[in-house]
Amino acid sequence: MQFRSLDDIRAFCRDLPKGDARAATAAGGRQAQLTKPPGSLGRLEELAAWMARWQGRELPTLERVTVAVFAGSHGVTARGVSAYPAAVTAQMVANFAAGGAAINQIARVAGAQLQVVPIDLERPTRDFTVAPAMDADEFLAAIDLGYRTVPPDADLLAIGEMGIGNTTAASALCAALLGGGTTRWVGRGTGVDDAGLARKCAAVEAALRRHDAILADPLAVAAALGGRELAAAAGATLAARAHGIPLLLDGFVATAAVVPLARLDPAVLDHCRAAHVSAEAGHRLLLGELGLEPLLDLGMRLGEATGAAAAILLVRVALACHTGMATFAQAGVAGPNE
Amino acid sequence: MQFRSLDDIRAFCRDLPKGDARAATAAGGRQAQLTKPPGSLGRLEELAAWMARWQGRELPTLERVTVAVFAGSHGVTARGVSAYPAAVTAQMVANFAAGGAAINQIARVAGAQLQVVPIDLERPTRDFTVAPAMDADEFLAAIDLGYRTVPPDADLLAIGEMGIGNTTAASALCAALLGGGTTRWVGRGTGVDDAGLARKCAAVEAALRRHDAILADPLAVAAALGGRELAAAAGATLAARAHGIPLLLDGFVATAAVVPLARLDPAVLDHCRAAHVSAEAGHRLLLGELGLEPLLDLGMRLGEATGAAAAILLVRVALACHTGMATFAQAGVAGPNE
Repeated sequence: MQFRSLDDIRAFCRDLPKGDARAATAAGGRQAQLTKPPGSLGRLEELAAWMARWQGRELPTLERVTVAVFAGSHGVTARGVSAYPAAVTAQMVANFAAGGAAINQIARVAGAQLQVVPIDLERPTRDFTVAPAMDADEFLAAIDLGYRTVPPDADLLAIGEMGIGNTTAASALCAALLGGGTTRWVGRGTGVDDAGLARKCAAVEAALRRHDAILADPLAVAAALGGRELAAAAGATLAARAHGIPLLLDGFVATAAVVPLARLDPAVLDHCRAAHVSAEAGHRLLLGELGLEPLLDLGMRLGEATGAAAAILLVRVALACHTGMATFAQAGVAGPNE
Repeated sequence: MQFRSLDDIRAFCRDLPKGDARAATAAGGRQAQLTKPPGSLGRLEELAAWMARWQGRELPTLERVTVAVFAGSHGVTARGVSAYPAAVTAQMVANFAAGGAAINQIARVAGAQLQVVPIDLERPTRDFTVAPAMDADEFLAAIDLGYRTVPPDADLLAIGEMGIGNTTAASALCAALLGGGTTRWVGRGTGVDDAGLARKCAAVEAALRRHDAILADPLAVAAALGGRELAAAAGATLAARAHGIPLLLDGFVATAAVVPLARLDPAVLDHCRAAHVSAEAGHRLLLGELGLEPLLDLGMRLGEATGAAAAILLVRVALACHTGMATFAQAGVAGPNE
């Protein structure tokens, strides 16, 4: 096990790999020579430099791209917080296995390998309005599983999740660690009505009261208010950082999953980009708090890493330009007027 | 020739093909049965219905995708309106042919055929500050060339342009046909400095004064203030409508190219989507005026259909989900709670 204790995670976050600044600078220098006005590819140029920094090479590669979808079950579903029955989590995992879900289609178009990681689905986390969702050992086991899911030789990782009830857990994490009131973090998830929305708010408020004593400790909050799939997403984020793998975060839940890490050190997300901003109420706010600028804004709110997988295609476009374009000198194209 | 006179174009725009509402409705009905919360794929669902409407089938196809890049030369470059010499237009067309430009890379990633159409590059349009850029015959010839560029069996068309000086022409079209003052339509294009920006504004203002008598006639404006590549883009837009081909517009210049058509009838753009909003100053404003919501917002400002080609990938993602996902019934996934 990579992390034997919460302190091991804290130690990793105190001494984070910094990425390769020289590779990023070299990539920027190359962009300036390509046959286009400087800066005219916008964020595609920034994506190329970002890939270069974390892969540690001026010409990044995209041979092995992994989409990891973590799934977990949530005790808080007993509070009526979702529009769908809790059994849908396992049913959707079966749908992933059969190739019938949105993420199967998008990962295929994106040229990515899909890894679905169901975590103890038959053993939901405890209802966090009355007890910690996980104890430290359960939390560390999920972190570790997420960590080990990441192929060390991956060129790019996209992470997402599935878990009926997990927007409530994500809202609880945000409310606990970023504050500003409960209601701004609670949205309609898969589509609850007003009564369901009120039950979600009540569940988050009850959780904050119940766990008030530990709210200053981000990892304790992640265990008490999160979920196994959120912990695994955090573990995968740490693995990507350790292995030098750029990472695309999916929507509200996947982003909320890394908030505890960001509260240890905001730089822990330097190798991450927000793939998209979802239609789930708190996501745009959360990205703003984390200083993440989304690549896509398509009103998606499905989870499953669907937004992250779609954004892989933008990275493909960025690197195709970065590595495939001719320079002004190669093409015999005149530069700007003096 | 499809259009023998400007009146032929006006007649086409008075009796536009309407698209297949039943196919769009059927596509929407299918989306509601797929294994996801209703609406959770956001704009990807809308893209599927849009493709269905214009292709006229519930399950649209993406076998043949064409990216058309029209190139033209501009007499107004004599006014010092660009950061690059006018010779770059032909040099970039050679770069397209050699496969070294950004659009070559992006079209390949998008699985699209690239058609580059240089139009009389050795014969620039007249400097529109002193004379009409084109006469009616020259304009119609460019419209016709654009029309004939479109393969009638294409499943999707993306259009863009290349032409040193053409953001000045695009700004002139917008200022003439949409009003509100010159400065809001003039931006830095490939990257002019403040003096260049002032020269662009002066050129547009001179053109509006010079051609004041015809500014109420959108097609006359397109001939007098536009360019051959802009006219060809408009012709391609009409061809796509005639053949039932959904169309992705690229950036500021490609969008400005269809403003004269939209002034004949705004519905002429119903088969079009704005692929992206570029960093060129007037583009966001222009999309707002036309009621177009961009799919991507990446700060790109390169032209060449690069934004449109990138957005093809979003259409691929949308249709992969639309045609490949299982329904709730097929997958044995429970629907929402009653």
